[in-house]
Amino acid sequence: MRMVDVIHKKRNGGELTDKEIDFFVSGFVDGSIPAYQISALLMAIYYKNMTDRERTNLTMKMLNSGERLDLSAIPGIKVDKHSTGGIGDKVSIPLAPIVAAAGIPDPMISGRGLGNTGGTLDKLEAIPGYQVEQTKEQFIEQVKDIGLAIVGTTGNIAPADKKIYALRDVTDTVDSIPLISSSIMSKKIASGTDALVIDVKTGSGAFMKTLAEAQELAHALVEIGRGVGMKCIAVITDMSQPLGNKVGNSLEIEESIDLLKGEGPEDLKEITLTLGSYMAILGQKATNFNEAYAMLEKTIEDGSALEKFRAMLKAQGADERVIDDYSIMPQAKYHIELPAKQSGLLTKLSADEVGIASMMLGGGRQRVDDQLDYSVGIDLHKKVGDPVQEGESLMTIYSNREDIDDVLELLYDHLEIGTEVNPPKMIYEIIE
Amino acid sequence: MRMVDVIHKKRNGGELTDKEIDFFVSGFVDGSIPAYQISALLMAIYYKNMTDRERTNLTMKMLNSGERLDLSAIPGIKVDKHSTGGIGDKVSIPLAPIVAAAGIPDPMISGRGLGNTGGTLDKLEAIPGYQVEQTKEQFIEQVKDIGLAIVGTTGNIAPADKKIYALRDVTDTVDSIPLISSSIMSKKIASGTDALVIDVKTGSGAFMKTLAEAQELAHALVEIGRGVGMKCIAVITDMSQPLGNKVGNSLEIEESIDLLKGEGPEDLKEITLTLGSYMAILGQKATNFNEAYAMLEKTIEDGSALEKFRAMLKAQGADERVIDDYSIMPQAKYHIELPAKQSGLLTKLSADEVGIASMMLGGGRQRVDDQLDYSVGIDLHKKVGDPVQEGESLMTIYSNREDIDDVLELLYDHLEIGTEVNPPKMIYEIIE
Repeated sequence: MRMVDVIHKKRNGGELTDKEIDFFVSGFVDGSIPAYQISALLMAIYYKNMTDRERTNLTMKMLNSGERLDLSAIPGIKVDKHSTGGIGDKVSIPLAPIVAAAGIPDPMISGRGLGNTGGTLDKLEAIPGYQVEQTKEQFIEQVKDIGLAIVGTTGNIAPADKKIYALRDVTDTVDSIPLISSSIMSKKIASGTDALVIDVKTGSGAFMKTLAEAQELAHALVEIGRGVGMKCIAVITDMSQPLGNKVGNSLEIEESIDLLKGEGPEDLKEITLTLGSYMAILGQKATNFNEAYAMLEKTIEDGSALEKFRAMLKAQGADERVIDDYSIMPQAKYHIELPAKQSGLLTKLSADEVGIASMMLGGGRQRVDDQLDYSVGIDLHKKVGDPVQEGESLMTIYSNREDIDDVLELLYDHLEIGTEVNPPKMIYEIIE
Repeated sequence: MRMVDVIHKKRNGGELTDKEIDFFVSGFVDGSIPAYQISALLMAIYYKNMTDRERTNLTMKMLNSGERLDLSAIPGIKVDKHSTGGIGDKVSIPLAPIVAAAGIPDPMISGRGLGNTGGTLDKLEAIPGYQVEQTKEQFIEQVKDIGLAIVGTTGNIAPADKKIYALRDVTDTVDSIPLISSSIMSKKIASGTDALVIDVKTGSGAFMKTLAEAQELAHALVEIGRGVGMKCIAVITDMSQPLGNKVGNSLEIEESIDLLKGEGPEDLKEITLTLGSYMAILGQKATNFNEAYAMLEKTIEDGSALEKFRAMLKAQGADERVIDDYSIMPQAKYHIELPAKQSGLLTKLSADEVGIASMMLGGGRQRVDDQLDYSVGIDLHKKVGDPVQEGESLMTIYSNREDIDDVLELLYDHLEIGTEVNPPKMIYEIIE
């Protein structure tokens, strides 16, 4: 088999066979096929797409290029959640203890952030002592013991995906539905979960800017799940404005703990419990959505979710005093208000630019080796649809530099105060 | 400037600026941009095409990556011919002496063949002693002296094109109009010619299978010529069956000399004199086609074209006795006839497969380092439209192996004898 023939077939819109997909994936991993042929194929895939069968095959080849975690030692149906990512998306942090408190084991393997904000692991590391690195044995023991763990990648998970992803990043072939979906699914299947709820975000702060794109990705993910025999439900949620009120590493931990205490913002609660409810259904701990939702809400009300969180902090070496004293996390030197320039309704608050502002303050990475400043971020006092008075603070900016004119200008440029607006729906669609 | 942004712009169908084109061409040549980014861009160009402005810029950047031959020491308007290539296409060999005899200096820089048949240089090397390598000074001196030379590349011509071409070959991005046209034109401009006639072949034995594709390429070439200020005329000619009767290196030299003696096949004569006539017009040696055609025909009748050919052989070290004695060229051991299996009209004789048959006999290269057998090839006795009798020989196969069942089977499979056929037009269209 010659790689140029595989490229030719895809270039002309053909469907690659299982053997052809195996040929290019394993050839790229073992170095027998050069990156310049793979990148040409990736660009052809970008334009010509892949069928469900090709996507499933690609997922399986990338999965089989590395280890697959065996979580069978943990009793019960293991259910994980994945999000395509967005600004203020700290959902994993309160969600894992909530579902664990409801008896659904959640072995969560998370990532770090590149771009606007930190990833789940970065946020957890704002808590002094939190250890994201675990051996497989520790990870499995902890989930068996307390029902949850949020850790970094353990072992050699889908190395083909890593190599292909690095190439996509520099060849402008990232935003391709077949490539995104096979990348997500290969890693999630490798992590050993039995079922998966996927939060596909849509809006200005999301990868999928339009609902149609989000629907396409959601269907692709669910179809691959069907192809490989893993139950998946995709939930399309809003990312036109940030999720919750707080953006930034320490700030998002605060808001996560607030939610577990029953004090979090409504939108964050709705998204978290909705995703959790589908996890409960997949985990066969509830038979319908309303039942699941009420069950999870109760774990907040009775404090059991907060206790699960405390148990996770203890198990992963973190200082559990953070639950009652947020000030043990890094604190920013300056708190700067952003006053409204006029009265009216907040009609726009672009998630993307709030994220960029947070990154400019030091809360996100522009490059993989950038150091994060956990203390900085933004606390939104108004969301889209809220009335505002001229001079009233729209948000507090937490910064370690006094002069943040660049950040203020960016934020002012991307918010609008007007007279009429329909606040966005939080949940657009469930695809299963 | 980041290469990923250049890829992104083209991927989304944008027009690259002069600076962006310079960035990727010079970055690829100097090694600062890796092949895997260039190949992704090439694939994006394959799908999204380039505007006339981009094609002209790309041509100029590739041209400027190397030397440009200065032929100003040769008096008169230098006119060259380029062909996109086909089976039995030996036109350059009789054409250069014909136009030189008519007073048009033809400094011809030719190539070797890869694929079905040898290139012009390979064919000339079938003549004992013929030297294709010359210094720039020798080349210029010879054209000044006798009006023609057919040599290999002299100097460092368009190294960017060489590097990009090698990458296109292994990433299935060869058949892209903007990439083909800028590749041809950068090399031709670098060779120092003042004007150019391009033979764009169409049909089963050509790169451009359909007339529409050939028209697109012809327009692209002429437009780049306009963009860079070089007068070009494109002639679209037939390549559904081989050109002339002889295919193979020594055999094509025989047919070329036959033509110069006034004995060549009609189709070869028509194509050669048509291309030459447009060269005469561009070289301002004739004001219209009929005048030009008659002038060139006369160089055959009066023997002056043959004398120019003899002068070229002498100047380039070749044994001029070949003109009267073809047997001084390598001769094949076996002459094998291919008898018609039925009577009727020859309705199909696929150029491509005649070329492959010649390659299988050893007359073409499958890989760049393959040695050619100059003696082998095919002499067609019938062309499309000719009546044939059952048992009559359709062609003689010149071979150095006795058992050529594989070749016979291929040839029988790709010719058809029927009852009705319209022989193909030789010249489809002139584009200027």
